[in-house]
Amino acid sequence: MAKSPAPKKQKPMNAFYAQSGGVSAVINASAAGVILAAMKSKKINKVYAGRHGIVGALTEDLIDVSKESLATIKGLIHTPAGAFGSARYKLKSIEKNLREYERLVEVFKAHDIGYFFLNGGNDSADTCLKVSQLAERMGYPLTAVHVPKTVDNDLPITDCCPGFGSVAKYVATSMLEAGFDVEAMAKTSTKVFIMEVMGRHAGWITAAMGLAQTQPGTAPHVLLFPEIPFDEEAFLAAVKRNVDQYGYCAVGVSEGLHDKDGKFLAESGLKDAFGHAQLGGVAPRIAELVRGKLGYKHHWAVADYLQRSARHIASKADLEQSYAVGKAAVEYAVKGMNAVMPTIVRVSSKPYRWKIGVAKLTDVANVEKKMPRDFITPDGFHITPKCRNYLAPLIAGEAFPPFEDGLPAYVRLKNAAVKKRTRTDFKL
Amino acid sequence: MAKSPAPKKQKPMNAFYAQSGGVSAVINASAAGVILAAMKSKKINKVYAGRHGIVGALTEDLIDVSKESLATIKGLIHTPAGAFGSARYKLKSIEKNLREYERLVEVFKAHDIGYFFLNGGNDSADTCLKVSQLAERMGYPLTAVHVPKTVDNDLPITDCCPGFGSVAKYVATSMLEAGFDVEAMAKTSTKVFIMEVMGRHAGWITAAMGLAQTQPGTAPHVLLFPEIPFDEEAFLAAVKRNVDQYGYCAVGVSEGLHDKDGKFLAESGLKDAFGHAQLGGVAPRIAELVRGKLGYKHHWAVADYLQRSARHIASKADLEQSYAVGKAAVEYAVKGMNAVMPTIVRVSSKPYRWKIGVAKLTDVANVEKKMPRDFITPDGFHITPKCRNYLAPLIAGEAFPPFEDGLPAYVRLKNAAVKKRTRTDFKL
Repeated sequence: MAKSPAPKKQKPMNAFYAQSGGVSAVINASAAGVILAAMKSKKINKVYAGRHGIVGALTEDLIDVSKESLATIKGLIHTPAGAFGSARYKLKSIEKNLREYERLVEVFKAHDIGYFFLNGGNDSADTCLKVSQLAERMGYPLTAVHVPKTVDNDLPITDCCPGFGSVAKYVATSMLEAGFDVEAMAKTSTKVFIMEVMGRHAGWITAAMGLAQTQPGTAPHVLLFPEIPFDEEAFLAAVKRNVDQYGYCAVGVSEGLHDKDGKFLAESGLKDAFGHAQLGGVAPRIAELVRGKLGYKHHWAVADYLQRSARHIASKADLEQSYAVGKAAVEYAVKGMNAVMPTIVRVSSKPYRWKIGVAKLTDVANVEKKMPRDFITPDGFHITPKCRNYLAPLIAGEAFPPFEDGLPAYVRLKNAAVKKRTRTDFKL
Repeated sequence: MAKSPAPKKQKPMNAFYAQSGGVSAVINASAAGVILAAMKSKKINKVYAGRHGIVGALTEDLIDVSKESLATIKGLIHTPAGAFGSARYKLKSIEKNLREYERLVEVFKAHDIGYFFLNGGNDSADTCLKVSQLAERMGYPLTAVHVPKTVDNDLPITDCCPGFGSVAKYVATSMLEAGFDVEAMAKTSTKVFIMEVMGRHAGWITAAMGLAQTQPGTAPHVLLFPEIPFDEEAFLAAVKRNVDQYGYCAVGVSEGLHDKDGKFLAESGLKDAFGHAQLGGVAPRIAELVRGKLGYKHHWAVADYLQRSARHIASKADLEQSYAVGKAAVEYAVKGMNAVMPTIVRVSSKPYRWKIGVAKLTDVANVEKKMPRDFITPDGFHITPKCRNYLAPLIAGEAFPPFEDGLPAYVRLKNAAVKKRTRTDFKL
C-alpha cells in the first residue's frame, strides 16, 4: 500500500475520527478502540471527533475527545449508536466538488490533523479513499484509514463487518422468541408471523434469522432474500405447506425484497442523501398477501432501528472485533499505512478464531458483497449448512451492558467543541 | 371467598393447568411455579396441562407433565411463550353453551381432576370463574384458581400483572436504544422515529417506553396513549417543537390509539375469537402523517410479538412474581380457596417490596384497569413522576436466560399425551 508522506519533524499530530452512515450497536466500541490506541501512541497528540461525522470536519465542528473521562471513553464499549453523531453525507467526486475536499484539508491543517479515521461502510470507504487522494494531490501529509462498520455485512475482503454480528444475534434471538410465541398461539389464533429486517441489497441480516431454526419445523420457516426475486406463487405455496405440516409459519423478510423486474416491494418514494430509496413496510405487504390469498390470521413486526441499536444483546465476537479494528486502524496509521482498512480474517470456524488483516481502500470502496448463492437453499427460502457455518460464530458470546434501575446504563459524552481556527464559514 | 366442597375421602386429585390468551416472556415461569408447588403438595397427584389451553380440556387433549424431567420443568423459568400451547378460545355464558361446561366437567371427572388452574388475563379470569360456578352447580368438587398473566397490565386489584414487567423492560430498553440511534442520525437523516407497541385499551406498555427518558430532551419525546383520543394538530405541534429544540423526536404509540369518536387509527378489519378488532400498523400511519404534514424523514418500528416474547431481556421482578403467583395458586387451591386469583401487593416502591395477596374472581373477571389520568401529563403526551414511580420497580433486575451457540437456550417439552378416557369426541 502507499506510504503517506512523513510529517515534518515527526512531531505528534492530532487525529480526526468520524462516524459515518447508519450506526450500530458496537460502532462506539470501534471509537473506543481508536481513542484508547491513540492515547497510547506517541505519534498522536489529541483525538478530535467530527460532530455528526464528516459534516463536523466540513463545518469545523470538532469535538475534543480529551475532555472526556477515561471511564466515559471505556463506557463507549457498551454504548450503542454514534456517540459523536453520525452522518449520511456523501462527498461528491473530487472533480465535481473540489471545494469540499479543499475545505477538509483547510480544517485538518488548522488543527494539526495528520491522521484521518472514518468509521463506516461502503460509501464511507469511498469517501476515505477520496480524502486520502486529494490530500496527497494537495501535498498535505495525511494518513487516512477506514474503520469498517456496517450492519449490512456487505464490505468486501473482510470476512465479516463489525456491527453485523450484533444485529445478527438480535434478529436470530427475536425470531427464535417470536417463533415460540406463534407456535404457542397457532392452534386458535395467529398462524403466520412475518418479521422484516434491514438489508437493502444483501440478505445477510435475513440469513441471520435463519440461525434461529435449531430444529426442523421451527421458526423461521421461510426467508425472503433480496438476492432472490420474489416469486409470489412459490412463496404462498411454501407458507401453506408449513402451516399444513407444522401448524404455523414464521417468515423473515428483507426490506430490500424485490420482484423480478427489480422493483422493491416496499418502496416509500423517499431517497436518502446517497440517492438510495428509503424502504420500509414490506412486512405488512407480505402479511396482506398471505391474508388475501391464504386467509390465515397473521402478525407482523418491523424491527427497524431496534435491530441495529440493540446493544443489550450484542454479540461478544462482534464487540471484540469492533474494538480490534479501531485499535488496528491507529496502529496501521502510525506505521504510515495509508488508504487502508483493517479487516477481519477468519482463521477457523470451529473453534472460531480470527485475526486482523488489512485491505487497500481501492479494493474496498463501493464494492458490495452479496450473499453467495450457495448460502441460500436451492428453493431460495432458507440458508444452507454452509451459510450457518459462516454465520454461527459471528453471534457467539454475550456482552451485556451494565444495567441501572432496570435499564442499560449507556454513557453520554460531553462532546465539548474545539475552538474554531479557520475563521471561515462553510455552507454544506 | 367460597370454600370448594372437600373431595371425598381426601384422596389426592390431579390438577389441570392451562395457558390462555396471548403469551408472555414469563408465563412459563408461572407454569413452573404451579408444577413445582403441585409436586410438593400431598393433595395433588399429577399435573395435566391442556394442549392449547382450555381447548385441550374440551378435546381431552391433556399433556402429562410428569413425563418431563425436573430440569426441563425448571427450564420453563427461562423459556418464553406458552410451552403447552395457549389458546384464544372464549367459552360462552353457561346459559348459552352449557354443553362446553358439561364437557369440561366430564373430562375433569374422567381424569380425577380436582384442581383447575387457568393462567391468563381478563377473559380467562371470567372463564375460570364460570367453570368454577358450573362445577359447583353440577356438584363436581373442583377448586378453580386463576393465575394472573397479561402483558397489558390491565387486571384489577393486583398492583401489576405478571408478564407486564418484562414487556415494559423490553420496550423501555428498545426505545432507549433506538433513541440513541435517531439522536446520532438526526443531523443529516432521520428526524422522527415512531415505535408501536401493544395495548389495545390500556396504555401501560406505551407508558413503559416513557421510562427510557432518563433526562430531558431524550427519547421518547411524545407518547400516544389509547386513553387519550388522538389530536392530530397537538401531536404535530409537539413533534415540531421537539425537532426544533432537540434536533429529533422519538414517538411511542399504542396499537390502540383512536380518535375522539373511538375509531382505531389502525383497524385491520379482522376480529379475534373474543370479537376484539385485530390491530396493527398505527406506526406507519403516524409516520405518513409526520412526513405529509411536517416533511421530516422518519423511521418506524412495530415490535409486535418481539415485545412479549423477549425473554432475553425479562425483568427479574416480573419473573419472580410470575413464579410466585403460580406457586401461590397451588397453595391457595390445596387450602380449599376457590374462585380466587393470587395478586401482587405492593408494600413499598423505594425500596421495592411486594407480597402475594388474593382476590375473588367475581371482583376480577372482565374488569379492565386503565391508566389513571394522573399517570399521564396534562398535555397527554408523556408520563408523570407518579407513573414513573409506579413503573420503575417493575422493570428492575435482569434475569438473562442461559445461552448456547449465541442464542438463548430455551427448553421444549415432550408434551406427551395422556390416554383418553371419555371415549367421546368433542367438536369445538
